[in-house]
Amino acid sequence: MQLGMVGLGRMGANIVRRIAKDGHTAVVFDMNADAVKELEGEGAIGATSMEDFVAKLEKPRVAWVMIPAGITGRVIDQLAELLEPGDIIIDGGNSRYHEDIKRAKALKPKGIHYIDIGTSGGVFGLKRGFCLMIGGENEQVAHLDPILKSIAPGIGEVERTPGREGEPSTSEQGYLHCGPAGAGHFVKMVHNGIEYGAMAAYAEGMNILHKANIGSREAGEFSAEETPLEQPELYQYDIDLKEVTEVWRRGSVVASWLLDLTAAALYSDPTLDSYGGRVSDSGEGRWTIDAAIDEGVPVPVLAASLFQRFSSRGESLYADKVLSAMRKAFGGHHELPHK
Amino acid sequence: MQLGMVGLGRMGANIVRRIAKDGHTAVVFDMNADAVKELEGEGAIGATSMEDFVAKLEKPRVAWVMIPAGITGRVIDQLAELLEPGDIIIDGGNSRYHEDIKRAKALKPKGIHYIDIGTSGGVFGLKRGFCLMIGGENEQVAHLDPILKSIAPGIGEVERTPGREGEPSTSEQGYLHCGPAGAGHFVKMVHNGIEYGAMAAYAEGMNILHKANIGSREAGEFSAEETPLEQPELYQYDIDLKEVTEVWRRGSVVASWLLDLTAAALYSDPTLDSYGGRVSDSGEGRWTIDAAIDEGVPVPVLAASLFQRFSSRGESLYADKVLSAMRKAFGGHHELPHK
Amino acid sequence: MQLGMVGLGRMGANIVRRIAKDGHTAVVFDMNADAVKELEGEGAIGATSMEDFVAKLEKPRVAWVMIPAGITGRVIDQLAELLEPGDIIIDGGNSRYHEDIKRAKALKPKGIHYIDIGTSGGVFGLKRGFCLMIGGENEQVAHLDPILKSIAPGIGEVERTPGREGEPSTSEQGYLHCGPAGAGHFVKMVHNGIEYGAMAAYAEGMNILHKANIGSREAGEFSAEETPLEQPELYQYDIDLKEVTEVWRRGSVVASWLLDLTAAALYSDPTLDSYGGRVSDSGEGRWTIDAAIDEGVPVPVLAASLFQRFSSRGESLYADKVLSAMRKAFGGHHELPHK
Amino acid sequence: MQLGMVGLGRMGANIVRRIAKDGHTAVVFDMNADAVKELEGEGAIGATSMEDFVAKLEKPRVAWVMIPAGITGRVIDQLAELLEPGDIIIDGGNSRYHEDIKRAKALKPKGIHYIDIGTSGGVFGLKRGFCLMIGGENEQVAHLDPILKSIAPGIGEVERTPGREGEPSTSEQGYLHCGPAGAGHFVKMVHNGIEYGAMAAYAEGMNILHKANIGSREAGEFSAEETPLEQPELYQYDIDLKEVTEVWRRGSVVASWLLDLTAAALYSDPTLDSYGGRVSDSGEGRWTIDAAIDEGVPVPVLAASLFQRFSSRGESLYADKVLSAMRKAFGGHHELPHK
Repeated sequence: MQLGMVGLGRMGANIVRRIAKDGHTAVVFDMNADAVKELEGEGAIGATSMEDFVAKLEKPRVAWVMIPAGITGRVIDQLAELLEPGDIIIDGGNSRYHEDIKRAKALKPKGIHYIDIGTSGGVFGLKRGFCLMIGGENEQVAHLDPILKSIAPGIGEVERTPGREGEPSTSEQGYLHCGPAGAGHFVKMVHNGIEYGAMAAYAEGMNILHKANIGSREAGEFSAEETPLEQPELYQYDIDLKEVTEVWRRGSVVASWLLDLTAAALYSDPTLDSYGGRVSDSGEGRWTIDAAIDEGVPVPVLAASLFQRFSSRGESLYADKVLSAMRKAFGGHHELPHK
Repeated sequence: MQLGMVGLGRMGANIVRRIAKDGHTAVVFDMNADAVKELEGEGAIGATSMEDFVAKLEKPRVAWVMIPAGITGRVIDQLAELLEPGDIIIDGGNSRYHEDIKRAKALKPKGIHYIDIGTSGGVFGLKRGFCLMIGGENEQVAHLDPILKSIAPGIGEVERTPGREGEPSTSEQGYLHCGPAGAGHFVKMVHNGIEYGAMAAYAEGMNILHKANIGSREAGEFSAEETPLEQPELYQYDIDLKEVTEVWRRGSVVASWLLDLTAAALYSDPTLDSYGGRVSDSGEGRWTIDAAIDEGVPVPVLAASLFQRFSSRGESLYADKVLSAMRKAFGGHHELPHK
Repeated sequence: MQLGMVGLGRMGANIVRRIAKDGHTAVVFDMNADAVKELEGEGAIGATSMEDFVAKLEKPRVAWVMIPAGITGRVIDQLAELLEPGDIIIDGGNSRYHEDIKRAKALKPKGIHYIDIGTSGGVFGLKRGFCLMIGGENEQVAHLDPILKSIAPGIGEVERTPGREGEPSTSEQGYLHCGPAGAGHFVKMVHNGIEYGAMAAYAEGMNILHKANIGSREAGEFSAEETPLEQPELYQYDIDLKEVTEVWRRGSVVASWLLDLTAAALYSDPTLDSYGGRVSDSGEGRWTIDAAIDEGVPVPVLAASLFQRFSSRGESLYADKVLSAMRKAFGGHHELPHK
Repeated sequence: MQLGMVGLGRMGANIVRRIAKDGHTAVVFDMNADAVKELEGEGAIGATSMEDFVAKLEKPRVAWVMIPAGITGRVIDQLAELLEPGDIIIDGGNSRYHEDIKRAKALKPKGIHYIDIGTSGGVFGLKRGFCLMIGGENEQVAHLDPILKSIAPGIGEVERTPGREGEPSTSEQGYLHCGPAGAGHFVKMVHNGIEYGAMAAYAEGMNILHKANIGSREAGEFSAEETPLEQPELYQYDIDLKEVTEVWRRGSVVASWLLDLTAAALYSDPTLDSYGGRVSDSGEGRWTIDAAIDEGVPVPVLAASLFQRFSSRGESLYADKVLSAMRKAFGGHHELPHK
């Protein structure tokens, strides 16, 4: 089967490479001609313009767009001008599902089908396969099955869920048609919301372990802002975090892929000095909270993990100054700015 | 009536001054002889040592201890050696109520009575009166009534609660016998826990208003870490916070004394540049959460407000670095340390 | 000056009554003819239809719309058809500020001016005055000054903020022009967000006090789900919440209007048995979090207070069942449904 | 090597079974004679009393205590009376690490060594092995190595952390000497704190997916307490949660053992109707927050997950009633109790 790919960043290029392993072919396009050339060298058909890209695709065309969310809309509009009824546009990037709903509706009168695919896997996707969450019409999703199967991880060595028997479902192979337009990005959005929460759970726990020797500090080492410990004898541990994360990988309740990665990161940089800790958030974490609020669903953990990212970037400073100002006013404590 | 005061910091000294207005007398002691001298100049009887202090008190002696929580226990032990059955020790400082329970039990065999008083009012106490939350035995609390009434604000200009009639209760005069030993500091502890939560509510709201013009920033002014706005036209406001806090003081649901103080702070320093925003926490906020956890009571708001203070002092940094390390591992995004 | 009022619910009617005290006149309309009749009885000019309402207004007409947010848009459209260039529409309800921005823009070509006013004060507004947060063009807000001044609380008995001198600002009189279209509702939105957080701070603290006698329970009274107390002797207090809230009203840091109301509620129903505790949320609390997320501002306290309201209505049940299912799976603990 | 086991519940019995596979022997005791008999049937040496248990152990004796935390202290005291210098007591249960520090200190003068082992693995431990976090003196932990290795999962099929080479560390085999007395339970405590947070992250995400079709509800299906949706067309999805959790197991960032269990639970009961959702918390989650507060470490996510468990059991009800009472007071909205 043939797939067209617009956008040859790491994700787009690796998807092309994964399908090639199973004998599928690809027509590829990117504004960066070198990226096109590189994949041509690996067997793909390169295109020099969007027109050329469309011209080289077999009908019905399948055009997977894998570019930053900020410009996806524009590129899809451009594509839609060139495509014909029956063709399929896939947005495999990080669009908000609201956009999917709008785009599917806008493309329908033209007979162009729209599929949204949330893609998880990051830099490991080429090797592990990409977990695919798919939204769109039944017929088109079914049509894409051969390619989706190649991109997804497959059943692999993961133990089968008790009770599941017979032919593995697509979900067991790592891809799932979640519902109509937007459903793929909706499920991916919630996936990332969970990711934020789970990451924060580990990070907070690591921080407690990291400070477990605070009781060994001399009284003089405490700043005036800190409450001295009532029982310093309880905090005299020097915990080796790279070993703790390693031991939890086997047999413990918190074993996970995120933990595997954390153990690896701590093994190569036990102090984490090579990291800044100003943590970005992509849109999904934010949209997850917005969706929860619309639905009236309480998400204290997911929201706290998002807000901690904001705080890590200094965004609570003004609020903190308001607190300092209040404390000065009623208690006379003046928390001064740093010099 | 006569009151002994050990500890002539702002709070201790102002309590002595308040009772003097009503004709009560005081014996005062402090390690700082100047502080003693100053109050002697205002009519108090100064003492030169703990022994002298005890000797100058009329029996049954009433010794109010108003010193930092860290040394209160030692001073009370010292006092207890010098006092006689029937005497009363008051801890008016910020002890944890656990200590009160222990101390009352330890002093009982000696016939010495122990009273704990949580005191709110800060730097305004001399003028407004101090709100007093009292724990201890009925008889002794009753005995102290004349002095407590003088220290407390009195019914003042605060509107009477609908339904309350006749002789004002002590609670309407700003002091309350809350229960047995520790009850005063327990109620004061929760009071401060609420204070943290309410302060944070205002501070977070101020921060939202403060950034309400984020949509007017040029795209180039956003750091790579920030998600660009979907609808910048919604965030084009330059809100004058000193005026907003002022307008809320009259007729709004969020009118409060904390708001009064915030309005005053913003009026004198609209940018809050004179504040550092590294916010201290005294013990009470922490103990409140501990107590809630012991009781199995959910306190998401109070806890969040405490944790935000920790974060304001940089205590989330290690956790944030763990997040950076994870993001690097699965997504290839390297959040570097600042130079 | 003359004001037109569409919507004679409690808020609308009381605004008409407040301006009447200062000699202003009003033309009033409501779908409910009885409501119109009632205000006619108090001196207002009643209208029988929207057309009649517009016809009876002096030019430039000032039409204040005070109706549920869900139907405000429709009524404003209807009004706009009947009004003329130079006329003013005021939305004094609880619209989202997004709507204000759209409406002001839509009305501009017609020469109709749009003003949004966030109004706080609730059932006490008639007596205390309404705190007004105003968005719109300078000229029109200035034109409305006489009426706004009458509706607002005025400087009253609230102590003046230190440093403020001379003629009181409008903010000191309880009304404030916050900025262009939407600014009034934006500030009101944040006001309500703060309100949620502050309310939750008190409520959580009350809950801790309420359970302060948990240590006196017999072991047998604990359900299997509860962790027994390590030190039951620390939780033996029977705190009288109606007295505690009363004592905090004078001299304490947490004194506030919300506390006044809580003290009154507890005085009339100390057990709170007349309340259900399924707490509604209007849009403002939600929109505040949405805005904070758009701005990248951390609001852990405000969000936690919103989510607690969702939970109070049972909205966490499915999540809780997921937790039960996990616990059963790894630990063998089966938390069964209630019969 | 020989191990003594006091307490033959699921965990204790399965540990005995795991070491037997590697040729180690066990002396076993339990108040329940049937439990002893069962393990005798599998080759263990049964004891009829604590004295008999001690008598049958080879010196230096190794007595592993695996019983509920509430009675562990008493049993250890009893054992200590019977043991001799050089013997080793292991607490493999869920004691708070504070107790370990006290016990190790108390046993030291008697020459009895104390080891604390936090054990994760739950009902799957027999098959997967138990992840062991160990506190105590170097010499004794080294002495126990053969048994610890047998209980732990071993290196298994988990991929090796990049950079690790040569002989696998004990952490790679699933057991780790974390530090002196208490360190094992300290690390296990934080492990469980993380577990709570990660569980809540999944649960909240599931809840958002579960309610993703709220937009298809008729307006009339919303209760008065609910805010109607601004854009119901965005919430029209019927997400199949058992398939979503399955697809995430392969290639996604949130793949984890907890997710495996959730997928299995949803596969066997897609509606989760067999679960009640009143979620217990054992001590560890609470102690984790206490420790974080002592250390001044912000843990918004871990705390929120604990509080949500409290709320799931109805513990926020009084706070919610306070909110209802306030809302009634200022807004006139009366949220009534259920009939």
